[in-house]
Amino acid sequence: MRRRPRELGIVIGALPTGRHNAITDVPGVRVGHKTLIKGQGKLTPGSGPVRTGVTVILPPGEDWFDRKLVASAHVINGFGKSIGLPQVDELGQLETPIALTNTLNVGIVADALIEHMLGLNPEIGITTGTVNPVVGECNDGFLNDIQGRHVARAHVFEAITMASGGAVVEGAVGAGTGMSCFGFKGGIGTASRLLPEAVGGYVLGCLVLANYGRPEQLLVSGVPVGRLLKDVDEGSAAGSEPEKGSVMVILATSAPLTSRQLGRVARRAAHGLARTGSIAGHGSGDFVLAFTTENRTETGRFRQLQALPETGRQGSVVFDLMFQATVEATEEAVLNALFTAETVVGRDNHTRRALPQERVLELVRHTQWSHQQSSVAATTQEEMLPDVDDNSRSH
Amino acid sequence: MRRRPRELGIVIGALPTGRHNAITDVPGVRVGHKTLIKGQGKLTPGSGPVRTGVTVILPPGEDWFDRKLVASAHVINGFGKSIGLPQVDELGQLETPIALTNTLNVGIVADALIEHMLGLNPEIGITTGTVNPVVGECNDGFLNDIQGRHVARAHVFEAITMASGGAVVEGAVGAGTGMSCFGFKGGIGTASRLLPEAVGGYVLGCLVLANYGRPEQLLVSGVPVGRLLKDVDEGSAAGSEPEKGSVMVILATSAPLTSRQLGRVARRAAHGLARTGSIAGHGSGDFVLAFTTENRTETGRFRQLQALPETGRQGSVVFDLMFQATVEATEEAVLNALFTAETVVGRDNHTRRALPQERVLELVRHTQWSHQQSSVAATTQEEMLPDVDDNSRSH
Amino acid sequence: MRRRPRELGIVIGALPTGRHNAITDVPGVRVGHKTLIKGQGKLTPGSGPVRTGVTVILPPGEDWFDRKLVASAHVINGFGKSIGLPQVDELGQLETPIALTNTLNVGIVADALIEHMLGLNPEIGITTGTVNPVVGECNDGFLNDIQGRHVARAHVFEAITMASGGAVVEGAVGAGTGMSCFGFKGGIGTASRLLPEAVGGYVLGCLVLANYGRPEQLLVSGVPVGRLLKDVDEGSAAGSEPEKGSVMVILATSAPLTSRQLGRVARRAAHGLARTGSIAGHGSGDFVLAFTTENRTETGRFRQLQALPETGRQGSVVFDLMFQATVEATEEAVLNALFTAETVVGRDNHTRRALPQERVLELVRHTQWSHQQSSVAATTQEEMLPDVDDNSRSH
Amino acid sequence: MRRRPRELGIVIGALPTGRHNAITDVPGVRVGHKTLIKGQGKLTPGSGPVRTGVTVILPPGEDWFDRKLVASAHVINGFGKSIGLPQVDELGQLETPIALTNTLNVGIVADALIEHMLGLNPEIGITTGTVNPVVGECNDGFLNDIQGRHVARAHVFEAITMASGGAVVEGAVGAGTGMSCFGFKGGIGTASRLLPEAVGGYVLGCLVLANYGRPEQLLVSGVPVGRLLKDVDEGSAAGSEPEKGSVMVILATSAPLTSRQLGRVARRAAHGLARTGSIAGHGSGDFVLAFTTENRTETGRFRQLQALPETGRQGSVVFDLMFQATVEATEEAVLNALFTAETVVGRDNHTRRALPQERVLELVRHTQWSHQQSSVAATTQEEMLPDVDDNSRSH
Repeated sequence: MRRRPRELGIVIGALPTGRHNAITDVPGVRVGHKTLIKGQGKLTPGSGPVRTGVTVILPPGEDWFDRKLVASAHVINGFGKSIGLPQVDELGQLETPIALTNTLNVGIVADALIEHMLGLNPEIGITTGTVNPVVGECNDGFLNDIQGRHVARAHVFEAITMASGGAVVEGAVGAGTGMSCFGFKGGIGTASRLLPEAVGGYVLGCLVLANYGRPEQLLVSGVPVGRLLKDVDEGSAAGSEPEKGSVMVILATSAPLTSRQLGRVARRAAHGLARTGSIAGHGSGDFVLAFTTENRTETGRFRQLQALPETGRQGSVVFDLMFQATVEATEEAVLNALFTAETVVGRDNHTRRALPQERVLELVRHTQWSHQQSSVAATTQEEMLPDVDDNSRSH
Repeated sequence: MRRRPRELGIVIGALPTGRHNAITDVPGVRVGHKTLIKGQGKLTPGSGPVRTGVTVILPPGEDWFDRKLVASAHVINGFGKSIGLPQVDELGQLETPIALTNTLNVGIVADALIEHMLGLNPEIGITTGTVNPVVGECNDGFLNDIQGRHVARAHVFEAITMASGGAVVEGAVGAGTGMSCFGFKGGIGTASRLLPEAVGGYVLGCLVLANYGRPEQLLVSGVPVGRLLKDVDEGSAAGSEPEKGSVMVILATSAPLTSRQLGRVARRAAHGLARTGSIAGHGSGDFVLAFTTENRTETGRFRQLQALPETGRQGSVVFDLMFQATVEATEEAVLNALFTAETVVGRDNHTRRALPQERVLELVRHTQWSHQQSSVAATTQEEMLPDVDDNSRSH
Repeated sequence: MRRRPRELGIVIGALPTGRHNAITDVPGVRVGHKTLIKGQGKLTPGSGPVRTGVTVILPPGEDWFDRKLVASAHVINGFGKSIGLPQVDELGQLETPIALTNTLNVGIVADALIEHMLGLNPEIGITTGTVNPVVGECNDGFLNDIQGRHVARAHVFEAITMASGGAVVEGAVGAGTGMSCFGFKGGIGTASRLLPEAVGGYVLGCLVLANYGRPEQLLVSGVPVGRLLKDVDEGSAAGSEPEKGSVMVILATSAPLTSRQLGRVARRAAHGLARTGSIAGHGSGDFVLAFTTENRTETGRFRQLQALPETGRQGSVVFDLMFQATVEATEEAVLNALFTAETVVGRDNHTRRALPQERVLELVRHTQWSHQQSSVAATTQEEMLPDVDDNSRSH
Repeated sequence: MRRRPRELGIVIGALPTGRHNAITDVPGVRVGHKTLIKGQGKLTPGSGPVRTGVTVILPPGEDWFDRKLVASAHVINGFGKSIGLPQVDELGQLETPIALTNTLNVGIVADALIEHMLGLNPEIGITTGTVNPVVGECNDGFLNDIQGRHVARAHVFEAITMASGGAVVEGAVGAGTGMSCFGFKGGIGTASRLLPEAVGGYVLGCLVLANYGRPEQLLVSGVPVGRLLKDVDEGSAAGSEPEKGSVMVILATSAPLTSRQLGRVARRAAHGLARTGSIAGHGSGDFVLAFTTENRTETGRFRQLQALPETGRQGSVVFDLMFQATVEATEEAVLNALFTAETVVGRDNHTRRALPQERVLELVRHTQWSHQQSSVAATTQEEMLPDVDDNSRSH
């Protein structure tokens, strides 16, 4: 079991993490994976080898259709095939689990989500409207027989059934099984941040499906590790290939936000990705979906919403902290994917090696600041707390 | 004093109007005009003749900066020079009056709005952030010496000071002084609609600065009046000129909405314009700004928002009525501008004739349905009321 | 065989139509339907009765993946489940046929499009990137067992195989089989417009899947037919139901445009829909996709694009005509769907009656202008032609 | 004269710079500043002290109105008051110089741009349409009497007249006079990158008005300098204040792009900002405007556009390099602003100290990679060159 960077002493950012440093730190949120590995050697399109899977992120409960979640989507680079985003944009609502898979499997996985929702809500399309499944994807064709669309409906149901809170398995698992990141093995990563109690103590969690970047671009805690590694052999090989990657970023929070406010949060995921070395490459379809577990819809004459303040000093402090949490959690989620993923050999013996942790650690440790972060961070955070009796005028 | 189409028996849509059939039916909303007419004959660029002005729409009170309004903007055709919209998009907030003027006067009018706000809030930019003036514009260069930028700061202050509720002067007044519409004299028009008591009894008001369209496009209550008029002399003349127009649509409502919901409302203004014959011509910069008088921001830890429901049968009924109100009020506001505007002779003796009311009336009256509308409308409306004890499942 | 409104003397707009007054007037564009009708009486969810299908619109050739089409998407009301739009937004490219179907069938139909593309381009996902299927949908659950997702992959392949140019079968066919429009039977409709030779003689075609609107909203050539019909029995029944509709608008043109310019064209479809009575109701997911058959991508160092001019008088005239063509073709395509669709009895004996043509015709014919349109239109059109030697300054 | 980081051995990224490492490396592009410094001590709102100015970026020539530039705008955080962006979005055109100034001066500066354009094109608004001035802004109220709107029209004309190519004065100059960045003195910075000859040898230049960030956020070449500096006295002071900043990013290139493609380039500026430590804070209005000097509009029947390829391996390589250039130039432009700006004492003796170069240099130099960058970069770049005879299939 490979260790996460934080366990190795690489601390990203200043805010504290939640208990599991995972999207599941947002109460009620669960994650499930179904990993598909079968065959090896030469590619027979449609048959294998198989290195793929599906990952589902479940909002609290299972009454998602009746008590929809406030949500927002953001497209960093639209070169991707995600489904379900236009309705999220229009209504600011999420009404199903979010599924992640390989690019060509999106249709089948969306159909499986529909079927799951029909099981929970047999009236859909009969006495009510229809349902909007949300599926994100990355291209795992370097390792996987992607033409085979090996993720079947049953695999989606299994991932949903197995979904749980607590620690999340990361790396080459579920939808991450066949993914690559900066020329190394990528996949699923997750992280979380806690806001100070004085501004509500909310948690923000992030889960990424990381499948982007060229070897020389990788930054770890600001260190240009990609350039410094001498032995990035697959990296060099990959270096002659343009990126065909993508990254999906799922953000969940317990903070009460409107969908417009969640959109503002979602847009900061790009800043987190940039700190890992992302330039949102041409072929990298980068999508963000954010939801809150507060403000769920109810039946009735009015909706009562709570929203974090956006005016005055209070607004600035709270939203700067929300944005900082997003940037930090996104950066760390990507690094978690990279550090935990094991080497995978796939179709045509294509290989994505695990990030060489020891070498990376050595490069990062020799930087001057690695031991000073926590103390500075703590100080910083105190400074940023707003006064309780802040009556300053609006911005 | 020319009469509005409704006084002449031309009833647009099915919903009832507010007391004044004006944006001022939204409690607290006021409108002020400053009309500038000077000189005649040959154009001396920078000197005159002057046929222009400024119109301001004031949200309730004057504590706009401290208690910002929830707002949303929509761009139908971005070929225009309005200012202030990006911040409205980002924050969903309006914090100043809205001013309308001629295209080249936007800078000066924005500066005047800033000055007015500094007077009300002397701390702006010193202990608080800055302020975001919102100014819309149309091109009145066919009648006016637009290069002269004759609207000075003092004129804006005057329009604000004179602003009042109640009936609104329409036609060739304020920002509408030099505007053209479908080859006739255009300008300022306004209308309103009431939602049924059963869904809250809210009022939605619309004010337009109408300066778009070619003569042959004009529709009045569905009748292709533009094509049918034999004697559109200026119209014919105008017919050989491509449109250089624009239309600004300001929507105000007492319904509690979020900015995302107001955006949905704003997008329906296009449907109202389309029914007057608009095709959102290439050169017509068509902008919409919507605000609600509810949900104003406050200082404090949370914002409590009310929002109309968007799920289930209740959501459909309420929003369909909001959208219908928007379409109807926008269509009628344009017709009000056209019917009330008097002939104006401007620079180089360019002339925009008043719409020939009698001829139009004759054309519209001979249609079969003109006398049946109100009764059908009333029935229709009753049907649409949602049940009070609606417990239908969400959409 | 029911006749189209134009054959009955109802002429929409002023521009001439193409030979078939159909999207297939754009050279190389083909349309294919697969209609599924099975069973009757009581709904057994998952089993039937079946009243659904799939319609495909094929751009010229079948080398769509290698020579992608310039395209643009526009969302009028995002309350819908279409897939493929984010990549069209990002890259301005279409690389597959467009398929239309029922809402819950989108996943399976997208998967079928992928499979079809893999057959044509076996290297997809192996040596190249992946492929972006575009599927639009409306909810036919009032007549159809929508939970059954009865459109299988084989049906999509069949629709593609059967696709042809020439006259298009309209009404309750293909994806339109179970659709409703203004309380009557809706479905597939199509129309086209020719631009004057002096501006290039381009054709613009429109195909709609029309499934929106409440009975009292219907306008036919500006006449409030919906209100005037005494006997809209199903209409009245439908009147107590909020709309759960949608409309998909597909625009194709032979004019050389960039994707940004196509986006401007696509945004005018809303104006065409508005003239049929649409208010883009809350539950109506209204999407537009536009493509041109010019400017297809090639391999090589540069792309050479042609674009219609957008500056000066030339730009205004050309784009106003493009926009007028779009508004007219969209309005007429919807009416074509309504006039040609036959009565369909579906699940639980739910019935959508055909529009009563004779009654409608009577109502429209009695309007004063019905016989004058063509002559006025012809005159109007001549006026709008730009001078060949136009050297006017840019806008 | 303070030195730029590159002169001090801090090399950002891998691509080579243009001759001046400035936006003026794009042939024909000129920059002009007018700096206003007057008075000191206590603030008298409206009178001073004055620490502000205006900076103009001039596209080649001065026939901007007749031969408009292809352009695109991107809003990272819309909490700002820039004007002119909606028309850039709609038409993809820029037709005036771009001016930068303080927030409350936008109206007057826009008016000055209009006046300048009227001087060059006396027919504007008389025989042609109007003109769309583009003005960006940041809030310099911490140092400057921003209420005074001290930038007058004559100052704008002076900046335009003085504009020139070649090396650009950076730091506390022009619009940057009163700006702050990460708690230090900010202002104007610029940088450029050259693409390899094999993909066209294009230049991309960036100019920023940098006025954002909290002290503890600053990253220099990945090193958390903000946290590490012990003596950031003003920084600490500033640390208790939420950010009221902003950043304006202007990108110019000689690469032939469409406006949609420029939009893709513009969106990568966020990644460059993120690497300096930006989280796009709540109060930071972050705007990007990009233009190309190719593909300018002409009068005539068609526009012929050249566009870089976006399909196949060629497309990936070219756009990845464009994006890399954007990220690198944006990051370096901000650092150039920070490194060159001198300490400024402003209203109420508010002080923004110059970045302590020596301390920063010491922190950055002790990192392991500082001496290895250039060699790795060179290698990297060679690898990325596409084959000349690339016939790979499209993406």
